[in-house]
Amino acid sequence: MNTSKDFINTGLRGIAVASTKISDVRGDEGKLIYRGYLIQDLATNASFEEVVYLLLHEKLPDPEALSAFRGHLARERGLPSGVLDALRTFPADAMPMDVLQAGVSMLAPYDPDIRSLSHDAAVEMAVRLIAKTASLVAAWHRIRGGEAPLEPDETLGHAANFLYMLFGSRPDSETAGFMDSCLVLHAEHSFNASTFAAREVASTRAHMYAAASAAVGSLSGELHGSANVRVMEMLLKIGEPANVAAYVDRELDAGRLIMGLGHAVYKTDDPRSFILSPMARRMGERAGGTKWYDMAKQLEVLGKEGFRKRKGRDIFVNVDFYSAPLYYAMGIPVDLFSSVFAVSRIAGWCAHILEEHFALAAPKPVLYRPESDYVGDYCGPAECAFIPIEKR
Amino acid sequence: MNTSKDFINTGLRGIAVASTKISDVRGDEGKLIYRGYLIQDLATNASFEEVVYLLLHEKLPDPEALSAFRGHLARERGLPSGVLDALRTFPADAMPMDVLQAGVSMLAPYDPDIRSLSHDAAVEMAVRLIAKTASLVAAWHRIRGGEAPLEPDETLGHAANFLYMLFGSRPDSETAGFMDSCLVLHAEHSFNASTFAAREVASTRAHMYAAASAAVGSLSGELHGSANVRVMEMLLKIGEPANVAAYVDRELDAGRLIMGLGHAVYKTDDPRSFILSPMARRMGERAGGTKWYDMAKQLEVLGKEGFRKRKGRDIFVNVDFYSAPLYYAMGIPVDLFSSVFAVSRIAGWCAHILEEHFALAAPKPVLYRPESDYVGDYCGPAECAFIPIEKR
Repeated sequence: MNTSKDFINTGLRGIAVASTKISDVRGDEGKLIYRGYLIQDLATNASFEEVVYLLLHEKLPDPEALSAFRGHLARERGLPSGVLDALRTFPADAMPMDVLQAGVSMLAPYDPDIRSLSHDAAVEMAVRLIAKTASLVAAWHRIRGGEAPLEPDETLGHAANFLYMLFGSRPDSETAGFMDSCLVLHAEHSFNASTFAAREVASTRAHMYAAASAAVGSLSGELHGSANVRVMEMLLKIGEPANVAAYVDRELDAGRLIMGLGHAVYKTDDPRSFILSPMARRMGERAGGTKWYDMAKQLEVLGKEGFRKRKGRDIFVNVDFYSAPLYYAMGIPVDLFSSVFAVSRIAGWCAHILEEHFALAAPKPVLYRPESDYVGDYCGPAECAFIPIEKR
Repeated sequence: MNTSKDFINTGLRGIAVASTKISDVRGDEGKLIYRGYLIQDLATNASFEEVVYLLLHEKLPDPEALSAFRGHLARERGLPSGVLDALRTFPADAMPMDVLQAGVSMLAPYDPDIRSLSHDAAVEMAVRLIAKTASLVAAWHRIRGGEAPLEPDETLGHAANFLYMLFGSRPDSETAGFMDSCLVLHAEHSFNASTFAAREVASTRAHMYAAASAAVGSLSGELHGSANVRVMEMLLKIGEPANVAAYVDRELDAGRLIMGLGHAVYKTDDPRSFILSPMARRMGERAGGTKWYDMAKQLEVLGKEGFRKRKGRDIFVNVDFYSAPLYYAMGIPVDLFSSVFAVSRIAGWCAHILEEHFALAAPKPVLYRPESDYVGDYCGPAECAFIPIEKR
């Protein structure tokens, strides 16, 4: 086999590894599209359940289908008691993403379809996994705080029930609606690192839970899903609006980036940031003050100006920039921000795992098995001679 | 960004995605090389502990270093009681690879270095994880069988202790030596699917447990680590030597492959199969008969002949072909074969995660973030118009 070394150590930037019908990120135009629909339209008009249906079933539901699907998702929210018992064994200071990665794997043996290979069974598994991921995040947060996990409330929508299971009180409709929009906005983003991990694992024909658990692991990395955690930590560290300008100058002068500015794909502000920003301001107002939102806004303006002045080109706001102050104003603990991301993105992962397992059109996906370039030692022209231990 | 579509849906075959100093697979020559050393030399002369040292520390240990390293690995075998409690919550029919994937994630919160970013801490984590992976596999097997998990025996080597914790009796030196060779042979194989999954997850700066858990998920797929399970299931299904010829004809005539024949990388018999084959025969003799080994041998001969006759080209034996009858003769349950693979490959995964996190030479590894090609609907030249639910 001839091996191409043209793309070595580039993280596969610019290499289309697969065809997909799930989403399109048109970075130059600042467009994010789920199955043909603009993210702005979906965030404004569709619920998370509607978007999950779209992602899994490849079309928007009619009212009857949506009602049935809402009921289906709601009935699947409960966690097996064995999984709750296992969560109770974790140390209270365990990182929520570690618990979630384990939790997704732990759900597998309880799924009655786990050994099935049919498409219908896989969609059932996806519905269960999407429903239960929110419950896992909420249950762990309560368990680590010494509180009993709550039973889901089937009368609530997915976003409202998640907030209820997390905080123990039913959210007002505005807060639930904001969370619902956040779940819609984060549900899918093409072949990002976690989704690629899910597809990579699924390509071996590993089942949905194995692949989704891997995706949680990938999302836990600070270059990916915990970027919103880093944004909030930065805002907290800056502390006061008066400190923003000096912070921006110091970071940019040192050649560092401002967290939440810059994106690998968009050459515009992230289309999701325009929807998140006003929600962050409004939740701030309701939470007693818009300080963190205001600081983020100031940071955006000064960060963009400073970057342009130093580099002669523009830098743009990414999705993590305003989700951080928004989640913070909602009262979500900072160390759960990545988990909230997963509560949403699990929908996209499941759609991609289904596509990896069942795409029928040729060319079919095949096991990911890249090459590498060995640059290690050879001790000369041939292999190293093995030296027995007694002679070393 | 210009996107190359030259490699779409090819599973990255023939694309070198990264430079590595860990191993080299020279498929045309039938050579597998760990850090400069031929697999044959290592399997014949070096213990698993020695090979783990080589993989993690980039050189073979001297006697003193090896002795210290053996002690270090042996002392890290114990599982936190919380993890054992969590394993006891799993249903007894849970698939061992699901339990192992969860188990690797569950270890993370107990690692005192989990929040550390230093290279030294990462090597410590690797030692702990390699030591404990064997214990996880053995503990789960005993728990599912209603038996108490055993404490590790620090006086035994890694392979012997694994068999002891699995079966409850200390293995004779020949059996322990065979398991040791198996662990050496399976420890590393470049950018296969599970290792690539580990690196992909690690590329987000996710920690070692998150990345290794993802690799377990990838290995669980039937196109990857459970191929040795499929080989043994095939042998058991054929049942008797007299049925082999008819089985080969039927499968090849139907255009199907014989499990264990064929490999994506080698253009020769897998170099590891030459070492596994005599061990499989010998363990068969000791276990009361070489029936399964003999059938495998017959299947190899007839499968190769039949393939050549029908296709005009050669097909080769892969690593899973003789590991299956070998593990079976050792008394390892068939559904644990992939887990035994993981007990070994965890060493390679850890080496790759270290390389992904700490490779200092430019070009440095970067987050894997490939492109895809959207082939879904657009409902016309622009995006689909969103239709409100009441009008659907």
